[in-house]
Order: sequence, then structure tokens, then C-alpha cells
Amino acid sequence: QTSFPPFILSIIVGEILRLNEDPTVHGVALHLSENAYSNKILNAVKPEKDVDGVSDVNLGRLVRGDTYNCSISPTASAVMELLEKLVKTVDGKKVLLVGTCGPLEASLQCLLQRKGAMTMSCQWKTQQLQSKVNIFLSMPIWPAHAFCTTSCHTPRVHRAAQTNHPQITPTPLGEGKSTVTIGLVQALTAHLNVNSFACLRQPSQGPTFGVKGGAAGGGYAQVIPMEEFNLHLTGDIHAITAANNLLAAAVDARILHESTQSDKALYNRLVPVVNGVREFSSIQLARLKRLGINKTDPGTLTADEISKFVRLDIDPSTITWQRVLDTNDRFLRKITIGQANTEKGFFRQAQFDIAVASEIMAILALTTSLADMKERLGKMVVANDKNGQPVTAEDLGVTGALAVLMKDAIKPTLMQTLEGTPVFVHAGPFANIAHGNSSVLADKIALKLVGEGGFVVTEAGFGADIGMEKFFNIKCRTSGLVPSVVVLVATVRALKMHGGGPNVTAGAPLKKEYTEENLQLVADGCCNLQKQIQIAQLFGVPVVVALNVFKTDSHAEVDLVCEIAKQSGAFDAVPCNHWSAGGRGAVELAQAVRKAASQENSFKYLYNLELPIIEKIRIIAQKVYGAEDIELSPVAQSQISRYSKQGFGNLPICMAKTHLSLSHQPERKGVPTGFILPISDVRASIGAGFIYPLVGTMSTMPGLPTRPCFYDIDLDPDTEQVKGLF
Amino acid sequence: QTSFPPFILSIIVGEILRLNEDPTVHGVALHLSENAYSNKILNAVKPEKDVDGVSDVNLGRLVRGDTYNCSISPTASAVMELLEKLVKTVDGKKVLLVGTCGPLEASLQCLLQRKGAMTMSCQWKTQQLQSKVNIFLSMPIWPAHAFCTTSCHTPRVHRAAQTNHPQITPTPLGEGKSTVTIGLVQALTAHLNVNSFACLRQPSQGPTFGVKGGAAGGGYAQVIPMEEFNLHLTGDIHAITAANNLLAAAVDARILHESTQSDKALYNRLVPVVNGVREFSSIQLARLKRLGINKTDPGTLTADEISKFVRLDIDPSTITWQRVLDTNDRFLRKITIGQANTEKGFFRQAQFDIAVASEIMAILALTTSLADMKERLGKMVVANDKNGQPVTAEDLGVTGALAVLMKDAIKPTLMQTLEGTPVFVHAGPFANIAHGNSSVLADKIALKLVGEGGFVVTEAGFGADIGMEKFFNIKCRTSGLVPSVVVLVATVRALKMHGGGPNVTAGAPLKKEYTEENLQLVADGCCNLQKQIQIAQLFGVPVVVALNVFKTDSHAEVDLVCEIAKQSGAFDAVPCNHWSAGGRGAVELAQAVRKAASQENSFKYLYNLELPIIEKIRIIAQKVYGAEDIELSPVAQSQISRYSKQGFGNLPICMAKTHLSLSHQPERKGVPTGFILPISDVRASIGAGFIYPLVGTMSTMPGLPTRPCFYDIDLDPDTEQVKGLF
Repeated sequence: QTSFPPFILSIIVGEILRLNEDPTVHGVALHLSENAYSNKILNAVKPEKDVDGVSDVNLGRLVRGDTYNCSISPTASAVMELLEKLVKTVDGKKVLLVGTCGPLEASLQCLLQRKGAMTMSCQWKTQQLQSKVNIFLSMPIWPAHAFCTTSCHTPRVHRAAQTNHPQITPTPLGEGKSTVTIGLVQALTAHLNVNSFACLRQPSQGPTFGVKGGAAGGGYAQVIPMEEFNLHLTGDIHAITAANNLLAAAVDARILHESTQSDKALYNRLVPVVNGVREFSSIQLARLKRLGINKTDPGTLTADEISKFVRLDIDPSTITWQRVLDTNDRFLRKITIGQANTEKGFFRQAQFDIAVASEIMAILALTTSLADMKERLGKMVVANDKNGQPVTAEDLGVTGALAVLMKDAIKPTLMQTLEGTPVFVHAGPFANIAHGNSSVLADKIALKLVGEGGFVVTEAGFGADIGMEKFFNIKCRTSGLVPSVVVLVATVRALKMHGGGPNVTAGAPLKKEYTEENLQLVADGCCNLQKQIQIAQLFGVPVVVALNVFKTDSHAEVDLVCEIAKQSGAFDAVPCNHWSAGGRGAVELAQAVRKAASQENSFKYLYNLELPIIEKIRIIAQKVYGAEDIELSPVAQSQISRYSKQGFGNLPICMAKTHLSLSHQPERKGVPTGFILPISDVRASIGAGFIYPLVGTMSTMPGLPTRPCFYDIDLDPDTEQVKGLF
Repeated sequence: QTSFPPFILSIIVGEILRLNEDPTVHGVALHLSENAYSNKILNAVKPEKDVDGVSDVNLGRLVRGDTYNCSISPTASAVMELLEKLVKTVDGKKVLLVGTCGPLEASLQCLLQRKGAMTMSCQWKTQQLQSKVNIFLSMPIWPAHAFCTTSCHTPRVHRAAQTNHPQITPTPLGEGKSTVTIGLVQALTAHLNVNSFACLRQPSQGPTFGVKGGAAGGGYAQVIPMEEFNLHLTGDIHAITAANNLLAAAVDARILHESTQSDKALYNRLVPVVNGVREFSSIQLARLKRLGINKTDPGTLTADEISKFVRLDIDPSTITWQRVLDTNDRFLRKITIGQANTEKGFFRQAQFDIAVASEIMAILALTTSLADMKERLGKMVVANDKNGQPVTAEDLGVTGALAVLMKDAIKPTLMQTLEGTPVFVHAGPFANIAHGNSSVLADKIALKLVGEGGFVVTEAGFGADIGMEKFFNIKCRTSGLVPSVVVLVATVRALKMHGGGPNVTAGAPLKKEYTEENLQLVADGCCNLQKQIQIAQLFGVPVVVALNVFKTDSHAEVDLVCEIAKQSGAFDAVPCNHWSAGGRGAVELAQAVRKAASQENSFKYLYNLELPIIEKIRIIAQKVYGAEDIELSPVAQSQISRYSKQGFGNLPICMAKTHLSLSHQPERKGVPTGFILPISDVRASIGAGFIYPLVGTMSTMPGLPTRPCFYDIDLDPDTEQVKGLF
């Protein structure tokens, strides 16, 4: 049994006594691990300021949306001493063994949770974490690359378990993938002393200021500093916006310049005489090679070769490259551009997408190195030329500039959970028109960092039918990594909905079916859970069901779900209380995951890349969604034959389908059968490396509601504290 | 006479010997201060690799656009030792006295100049600088706020000299404001041991990838790391883009929501019942107050009050708030938005501006604190309502969110010159529709940092008629600071142009008038210089002319300019060679500036704010530009009376005029007279706090040329080195 060393105890008691007397503090909520309590602390809190009831420790009654109206704020020097204690000496060098914080340390870190102290204290902690984390990689981590001078050693074993984290078909409220991910690593590292890393996606600013709010987890399972996580962070999405829009501007400007200049004028401008010398740039030499012109002296090209070289001949009606903004701006969904006189009548219809829908985001999530990223950026197809051949970013001469704009974004950002365990935040591609998973690079770096016996928990967007299928068939093919466990997140609420419960709508109060015990609805809804388990099993990976428990769930309901899950083939199924209890509430889950990871693993892909595009689509539709067959529109058919002819037939498939049903119809809950999946169109992200069939229309630009989140967001100019960002 | 300590000497000689034998190195250029040379070094360089001729030290023949084909790369530990030497102990605490680097240290830092070593070494140095710089302010500096734990002491005296830096009417090639600014601080601090700070503007990414290229200075007068300076830096411009576009999206979404909902539906959505409770948010309570409704319970509003509260009634034809991107995208100059079916026919014509033209950028440059910034953001006018009353960001409920998005951007970014002297980079507003000066906050923080007897050199955009006039009449009014000296930058090239020389065009070779001695053209052109000096004298501040010497300028030409400048009322006029020689080439300028700063100062504004708008415009046109009078279009007249009625008549004036002539006609060089200045329109940036009359049309969105800069920009994926960014 550990307890606080005297100096920390006095700080805590001193703070409590101070808060007792502070009229602006309305209550003090303690959140310490049980064995860290002493009578001295228990007796210090004035009864009228005891928010939680001290006997109820570690199961605080925190409700989402509440502000933490309380707190104990340890001094910087106390935290510093704590961190010093975490540093071990290995081979004569100081090393922080990632995630070896014991319960005592975790408890003290919990003291930093109160909203007020969080930003400042945690920024400070992040910096400490960066400077001390055991970096044994040459791969730079942003912004840790500035701190990598401390100490390095070589890992003995690189293999480590990787778990993947989809959920059952969700309600529109979401079922808690992020919080389970965070709770699980808190349990593994802060409570079971197992090295672990969470790999999360960076959220888009659009929804943060629009409808959804922040995405840093919630309750006692959060990434901190939450404000930075939900704002610009290290600027990766802004870099994507800049790169995406430079390419878009280059496309239209090129069409205009080609339309208004002779071959000769274009050539003189593209290959100018500088200080008396005329030379091709290296990107132009590469283009000549692709055109089969093996010349390096600009003076020797024939008129025909010049024409081939200077004209991309883009067909404006085939442009698929759109501009992006990281703002929910519905008025940019369909626009006409180029209407100023200076553009000489070359207006055309276009659109803006939300920045995270950019193919560059998908590339960031799938790339394995700077060289690989640069190659993918160059291969992005922006349009066809008038002969039906693809025109790429490389043809426009912009590959290098795009790589320069993205050079820092490729480095994952290191953050931490509320209990001080490490988190990588990197990339956040759309989960319908892209693959919706966090980055390959973050997973790979994290796997090296956790070492043998460690765990990397990586999140997949949406349900097992979407995020997980794409994780296996697209992301695993790129990374070459084999996952050890699938953690499937379920809630009683969502299962009731699948069992026939009334509609669940964001903003409206929940019906009583969801707040009162109803075992029949739960039992009926478990068909969806069973199906999702079966989908995971198609890939040969053991499944652990994590039941994210809400305070309205009854014991009988929780037990029922776990029982059915195990009968349906799950390796294990356990309730989790990480929201209210932090890592301690997910210890049982962590133990189940460790056991599952030690099982035999027979991972396999669902389809061979060599199959025709149509066959690959059909396999996903039938085996994963349970469709009877697929039906292609004429447009979809012609696109498939075009891509096959252009040599893109061997890419994996990224289905753009609603996440609210296993079928294409959001209102069909449970396990729909007997449906024909309609494919309305087929598009391609050649740089990212997948074909994406559209099942219905997908909105790629959200809008602002009548009362956007920003009504509640504010900044205190004195304290710099951000309010209302959840 | 200083010389290298032995350990540094052996590193240098060792490096030279290694480079001698490296077949990939084509030459070695040494750049050391004279007294740092020893025979050991002189003899080490192989003759066939001696690029500069070692006798020609410190006047290297570096030409803009050349790559540094050479170098000496000191090890990190050598640089570390150097930095240790710079740290002084004050009151028992380690303190880096800003800018006390002596010639020896400056020389060693110069060793880092070669392109290859620069990025890495200098990033490292920047971090050191941040952690050691003598911070004695509570004002946080980004990203230094994470490092401020080292040591603090209180300054004895806050007053320090401030110099302001406009230029004569330039050629389209620019005459070197940035390099003179950097050369001057290098001279002051690295050579004269005077504390100094340069305050520069952050460049837009648009021109960097378009026509202009980078803006970090040039030759041996540069800000490093140059790559970061020219790329995302700490993300301030991206934050502006995000804030600007959130407001734009809110405007159009609000119009749509008001048009499609009843008062009751709007009210129910704007003030929803959450967990059984209905409450106004604080920004809504403020709106009620402005409307004269003194109620706080949402249940008590009358139907009429509800209607007033929920309807902003924006007149779409009056919207002045535009979307922005930091990309040169000419196709966004005039667009139609809202054409998707989901926007129900509410399409309208709009435009995108370059991000630095956003009013939020102007606010960032003028604000004095977080509270002030938040207030200015709320006051921004986006449109008029149907009664002709201004609608603000505050009315849309978005003030807090904008402040949150801008909370880090308000912190100036600390960088350094090639000679290791400190630089603040902060804000970069357009110099025509805005005031074109770097930030008030950077100036104020820098003034405190340099202490008594120190210098802050701050750059003003364009010529004395534009950047300087706005510096005095707009920026000085906000900051309350009084400048000590005006440094007016001139070149022989620009003066010849004003004397009747042929046209100067970017990209085309210079005519022989500019490359050969021509005293008559110079003498004739000095009328422009004289006029610019007179403009500065209107404000009662002494003027030092800095003649930025090019290698083609003859001694006689240089002498002639200096002589005429002094005859025309300049306190002094000196030639500068900072481009080729770094700070050493601007020592004479630095001495003149110090002398001028000790002069009596009788600073005064040009006009009283209380004068009518028209009078203020006339005073600028006549006294500064030399116009006979002004002529207002009917639109301009009605706008002026509207703004006066709305209570904005007492704001200062920010003229949007071409910088290529003192008049409104770019082709009229020298000192045009007898012209009537036409005011075509008058607009307002209420948050930034100025009225801006348009003299002709101003492009607020540049385009990409046929061969943009990005053709030459590339990233080496192995070394992460950026190529082609100047």
C-alpha cells in the first residue's frame, strides 16, 4: 500500500485548506486513487465544500458538460519532483520508461485535472514528457524533435501488440471510441505498469466550432491539454489546407495560361533565360522523361516536343481536385469560380470540401516516410487531359512545394492522457471518402517506443463495417503491421436502438427506453453486436467487447450484453467505467486485452488486390455489409473501366457508405439483409492509393447549425483560459 | 584583437581539411571577422577550393540566387560552448544580455550560414536563444512561453530608442527595407555591443510560392531559420485564416437560417432547453443589453423582443466581410457561393482575399493586449442590416471563438539574424488596404527587452508616403510610442528610375542605365529622395538615409546621393554593405542612427482625429503626396456620410494607394505635382480602427504566374533540406 510522501501530503492539505477559505471556490472534488487517501486529507475538506463526498473517491459524479468547480493545484516544484521520481537510470543514462507511472504518480497527476489549472500545468508537463520520453528512434517527432538530445538507447525487440478500436454501428451521439481508447491505455500503463501508447486522430476545427464540439475524450479519460488538441495543435491540418489549395490554384492558373498563350510564349515563360542561361528544372526534366523526350538542352526541342511539354491540356470538366477549408461553411458546397474580368471568362463550377477530406490528409495517414509521402503527393490525379489521360500534381510541377509545406506535418504530435500516459495525435482522414484511421507512422513509432510486451491502441473511425474493414484492407496493407486484438466498443443505448428503440437525435432529450431498464430491447439489439463480431472474425483477429457503461445502464443489462457477446464469439466482453473512474475503470478491459493478445493470431485480408474492382466491391458488400449483391450505375461502370485502363485496377477499395447502418440506408438498424447495395459513382485517390465507390451521396462540407458551438466558446483575457470547448 | 580559442580553431581547421578532400564540395567560402583569422586557417584551404580568395574575407562575393556551395560546420558542442560564453551572471542568476555577442561570437555564428547546416543548427540555436534570452516581462512570447522559467529581473528603465524604417518610392524589385533592418541590428548588437531588436512582418505564403519568393532578408543580412520564416512559422497566418473564415461562414449561415425559420423556431434553437433549463449565454445577454432589453429570463421576452433578438436582418448586398486563403488563387477573385440545393437559392457574389488582407491581421498588428484584441474582434463590422445599421462579429455571437482561435497568434515569435541578434516576427498586414506595419506588441516587448540605450528597429511597408505615414498616424496613435529616428532606405537604381531611367520590370534584365555610372540620372532622381525626407520631417523626427549599395554602383554615385540627402535635410546619409558584409557593412549606419537618436525630438501627428473624414484625407493627399486636391466619387461621398452617421468619423485614415508613385498613377515617377487625387470608394475596418479610402482599384488576391516559384522548390527526403526557397 503506497501513500503520499510527507512533502506532497502537506502541499495537498495546504491547498485544501486554502480552497476551503476561498469564496470563489464552490466545491472541492478530490480524485485520488484509494490507497493514496489518509485521514489528514479526508478531514481537511470542509463539509460544505465536499462536492463528491470523500467516501465516494475515484467514482466522482462528473457529468459531461459540468465544469470542474474545484480543485487542488500542486505547485510546479512538486510536480517536478514527481517527474524526477519517474526517471529511471538505465546504463548510466537517465531514461523515463514510457508508461511506468505507478498508482501514486497517476494520482498526483490527477490533481492537475481541474479545468483551471489544466492548460498551464499540462503544457508544462507535456514539455517535460517530451524531454524525458525514451526516444530510441531516428524518426523525428513534432515538436519533440527539438528535445531529442537527452538520452537514447536501442530497443531489444521491436514486436509489440497492436489493438484496433472500432465500435458497433453507433447512434448519432457516438458510443465512446475515443474515451475507451484513452481509458484502456490509462489502465494498461498507469494501473498495470504495461507500456502503452494511444494513437488518435486530430479533430477538424469545423465540427469543433460547429455541432460536435471537441474530440479529446471525456470525463477522466481525456487527452491533455484538451484546448490545444481541439485547436490548431502543431498546425498539421493548416499545412494540409495550404498544400491542397496551392495545387488547386495551380490547376486553374495553368488552364488560363495555356488558353491565352502560344506554345512559344508558354515555353519562354516555363523555361526562361536566367542570367543568360536557359535550363530545365529537375521537375521539368522528369516530365520530359515521362513524355519520352530524352533531351536536357532546352534549345534542342522540336516544335512538336515543345507543344507536348508545355501543354497539359486539362479538360476542365474532369477536374476532381477541390479546394478545402477547415471551417463548416455550407455556402462553399457548390460555387462558381473565375468570374473576375482578369480570368477572361474561364469560370467554372467547383466546390470547397472540409480540409480533412483532402486526399493529402489520407496520404498523411498512410505514408511511411518523407520519400514515400513526396511520391504519393506527386501521383495525385487532379483531372484528365483531353485525351482521357490522368494529369497529376507532378505534371503541374508542384510536388516539391507540397512536400515542403508538409515536411513538419509528417511528424506525429506527442501528447498525454490525464493520467500522464503517452498519446500520439496524427492525421484524421474522413471515414467515408477516405479510410478514417490514424496514421501509420504514429503506430509504427509507438510500436517501437513501447517495446516488447507493450501495447499500441489505435483508433478506427465508425463501426467495424467501415473503420475496421478499412483498417485491415487498406491501412494494414500499407503498414505491413498485424493487429493482435480488436476492441469493439458497444453501449447499451446503441444496442437498444438496434433492438427497435425509438430514434436517437442529437440535441433532443433521450426517450425513457434509453434511461430505464429494458432487457428485451437490449437482447434484440445484440444482433448488431454479433454481426460486428463476425466481421472482425473474418480477418482472423480475436475480439474483446468493451461495454462503455452509462450511469443509466442496469446491472442486468450490462451482464446480458457481456453474456451475448461471449456467446457470439467474442474472446471476452467487459464493462468499462473509464469516463467516471479513469484508467482504474478500464483495468478489467486491459486485462482481457492482454490475454487476447497472447492468443494465436491468424490475420488475413478479405480480398486479393489482383481481383477486378467490381469483385472487390462485391466481396465487401456481401461479406461485411450482408448485402445480396451490388448494382452499379452507368457512371460507376464507366469510371471503373477508365481506372482499370489507366492502370489503377489493383488498388484496395475504400467504400463511401453511411456509418449509421450496415446497409446504405441510415434508418435500417440491427442487421439488415436482402438488400442490393447501389454504387452511384466510383472515384479514386491515386496518391493515397485507393478507389472509392460512392454508396449514395456523401457530404464533404458540413454546415453550421442555427446555434453553433461557438456561442459558448470564450477566452478569459486575464487568465488566457478557454471556456466552453469540450 | 580577439582570436579563436584553440578548441574552436581545431574544429575549423579540421573541417576545412575534410572539405578539401570531399569531391562533392566544389569550393569553400570562409566568412569570418578579420581579426579572427590565423595563418593556420589561411593555409588550410586548398587553392582550388578557395572560392572567395581568403584575402577578400568578410566581403564575400555572394550573389542572390547563388547557393552557398561550401562550408564549415561546427559541431553542436562547439556552438553550445559558444553560447555558454555569451551567458553572463547577474545577481547570481544566469542571464543572456540580449545582443551582447561580440565580434568573435558573431564570426562563429557566421559559420552556420551555409544553406545545408542552417536549418538544423539554427533551429537548435533558436531554442537556446529562447531559453536564455533575458525575459523580464509578464507578456508571453510564442513559443518562448514554454521556456520562461529560467531567470527574470526587472528593468531599470523602460524608455529606449525606436527607429522606423520606410524607403523611397521603390522600383518593382524592392529596394531592401528588410535587409537594411537586419543589417542595422546586426551592426548595433554584434559589432557595436548595443542591445537591439528587429521587428519584422511575417510574409504571406501566397507570394512565397508565387512570384516574390521568401522575405527573410538576403545575403549576410538574413533572419534564420529562413525556411521556417517563409513557411508556416508558428501558424499565426493560419490562425487568422481560420478565424476570418469562421466569421464568414457564420454570416451566410445566419442569413439562411433567418430566412427559413419563424421567430419562434429561431428563438427555440438559439436559446434551447438544456437538461430542462433555458438560459441565455453571456454573449446573448450582451446582445440583449445592446438592444435595450434588460431581461435575463428567456421566458419573459415579448414576441416583439424575441423578433428583435433573433433577427440580425443582414442585407446581403452590404456584406463586406470576405473569405480568405493564404494562397495566390486568382480564380477566387470573384465567385458565386451558395449554389448547392441545400442553400435553397441563397446564392450571392463574393470573393476570397489573400489572408494577410484580413481585418484580423490588421487587428493583430495594432492590438495591445488579449482584452483589447477581443474587443476589436467583436467590433468588426461584417455588413449592414436592412435599416443601415452595422452588424458586427459580436452580434453573430462569435467574438469568443475568434479570440480563442487567435490566443496564441498574439504572441510574437522570437527568431534571430545570421549574427545571432534577436528578431521578433509578428503580423504582416497589407500595406494598402491596411497599414502595413509590424505589430505594436512586438515593438513594445522589444523596447522593454533592449533596456535603456537599446534600439528597436521596426519595419514599415512601402515608401515614406505610405508605410511611414501610416506608422505615425495610425500605429503610433495606438501604441503611444514616439519614434526616435527614421531610417530612409534608398538605392541608386531607384533614384535613377525617378530621374527618368527606363522601366524596371521583374524578370527582365536591367538596362545599362542601371548597371553603368550615370550621375545625371542619379541627381535628377534625388527629387524623390528629397520629397521623402520632407515627408518624414513633417512628423518632426530626424531622418538618416541608408543607401543600400549594389555592386554596380560607382563611388561617385554613392557620394552624390549622400551629399544631396544631407543638403535636403537628412540628419545623415551613409552607404551600407550589409548584403555582402553582414552587420560589419552597416556599422556606419548604426553610428549615424545612434547619433540621430540622441537629437531633440519634436514628434507630432499630421492631423487631428476630430477633423471630418474628408479633411483628413485632403491633408494626407496634399501634404504627403503633393496633390493639388482630392476628388470624391458619389459612392465615396455617401460612404463617408454613412460612416460619420454611424459614429466612425473620428478614426484615422488608411489610404489604399499604389506604392509605385507618390501620386495615384504608378507610371508617374519622381515628384509628381498638380494632380487631383481621385477617391473611388471609402471602406472601414472598425475593429482595426481605421477608415480606408480607395485610390483606384486595389487587388487583394494575387495570382500565380505561368512559372511560379514552386517550380524550383523541393525537399530532400533524406536530409529534410528545403531547396529553392529564397
